[in-house]
Amino acid sequence: MSIRFLTAQLAQQIDEELMNAVGAFSLDQLMELAGLACAQALSTVYSKERYPKVLVCCGPGNQGGDGLVAARHLGMFGYKPTVYMPKPGSKDIYQRLQKQCINMDIPIIPPSASIEELTRALRSSNVILDAIFGFSFKPPVRAPFDDALEFISASRLPIVSVDIPSGWDVEFGNEEGVGLNPDVLISLTAPKPGVQHFRGRHFLGGRFVPKAMQEKFKLNLPEYPGFDQIVELPRNYRM
Amino acid sequence: MSIRFLTAQLAQQIDEELMNAVGAFSLDQLMELAGLACAQALSTVYSKERYPKVLVCCGPGNQGGDGLVAARHLGMFGYKPTVYMPKPGSKDIYQRLQKQCINMDIPIIPPSASIEELTRALRSSNVILDAIFGFSFKPPVRAPFDDALEFISASRLPIVSVDIPSGWDVEFGNEEGVGLNPDVLISLTAPKPGVQHFRGRHFLGGRFVPKAMQEKFKLNLPEYPGFDQIVELPRNYRM
Repeated sequence: MSIRFLTAQLAQQIDEELMNAVGAFSLDQLMELAGLACAQALSTVYSKERYPKVLVCCGPGNQGGDGLVAARHLGMFGYKPTVYMPKPGSKDIYQRLQKQCINMDIPIIPPSASIEELTRALRSSNVILDAIFGFSFKPPVRAPFDDALEFISASRLPIVSVDIPSGWDVEFGNEEGVGLNPDVLISLTAPKPGVQHFRGRHFLGGRFVPKAMQEKFKLNLPEYPGFDQIVELPRNYRM
Repeated sequence: MSIRFLTAQLAQQIDEELMNAVGAFSLDQLMELAGLACAQALSTVYSKERYPKVLVCCGPGNQGGDGLVAARHLGMFGYKPTVYMPKPGSKDIYQRLQKQCINMDIPIIPPSASIEELTRALRSSNVILDAIFGFSFKPPVRAPFDDALEFISASRLPIVSVDIPSGWDVEFGNEEGVGLNPDVLISLTAPKPGVQHFRGRHFLGGRFVPKAMQEKFKLNLPEYPGFDQIVELPRNYRM
């Protein structure tokens, strides 16, 4: 049996069931584990010795929150992250996660900064963590992320994308050609249909879905090794 | 420079500073990372193949919450945990963490169960995770934990204790002789004075204290390897 590719609707439903009164998870918990998994995937491929400077690009939604958590853990692992989050969401959790980064001396490019600030940050970075858009993204890409995606692509830096590479359609992938071209992908809970032709290194994170829920949604997840929060998918995981 | 042993008062102060408006961490976040670290320490020493059945013994406070999180992660790792939590704290978080365990099909011995239920559980367990008392424990050990400690000791099962072995004085250790004798210890944030003569395998968890706070409290923490949430202390870590 092969792994299941989750539509945006199903991914949304799983998130809701994890966090409703029955699932009983808080957003804080799931974001902590998802962000930790993202940091683990990046550090598996890009060592802190050769790629110390990580530009963590965060969108306005939950995916941006995962990025902030990942930035903090990367700081703990010994990387030198910088956060780019031009449109921080209004939820209290984004404020708290940003404060946690600031307490770790992780620079945050202020939302008021010009796009040139991003290009400067790109010039002094070794690798990108793309936590801009997640499975709830619907095209088109709006400002300031349209310019941001262009500059990130132009930088030719290696990119680790979270869940769905930014700019890709969750169902149809990069058909429009406006999305990033990541080298590494970390899918959360289960991969989405849009990434089934992705051929870079592909990790899975989100080791928190109870067995019963895995079965209900027929996820057919691979086994995670040891106590890691990530598992690398083999090259032949396709449907 | 050697690692610092933290009095209960300092450990309390660090927890408070992590969770006040400046530190900005939620209890959910810290408990998730602490509990994950406990599960990682246990699984490093006791494999799920030889020690599948873990009895996770939880006290009424935050330490019990760490235990519930650890039980869930152990379930994710492929162990068969059972939770013994005779006095669940009243905070909402304990209810949520218990529900998360129940959703993972982790049996929870009900608080109404007789002490014989504990002895039955001990007979079918391979290893104990002792998350009964933490750094805020003050003697004497009160019911039902007095009997529980006795039965756990009598079982002669291997024990992994969290932060301070249950029954030990946080400052003076097991001077009274009523405490557990764990084989493995996982100290959270930094070890406490009472465990400085502990000679089993000793891990450190709680990889979330920002560098600036580590320096303020002169923790002199060892370096954590890779992306793990635990680090094993060398045998010569004494003051």
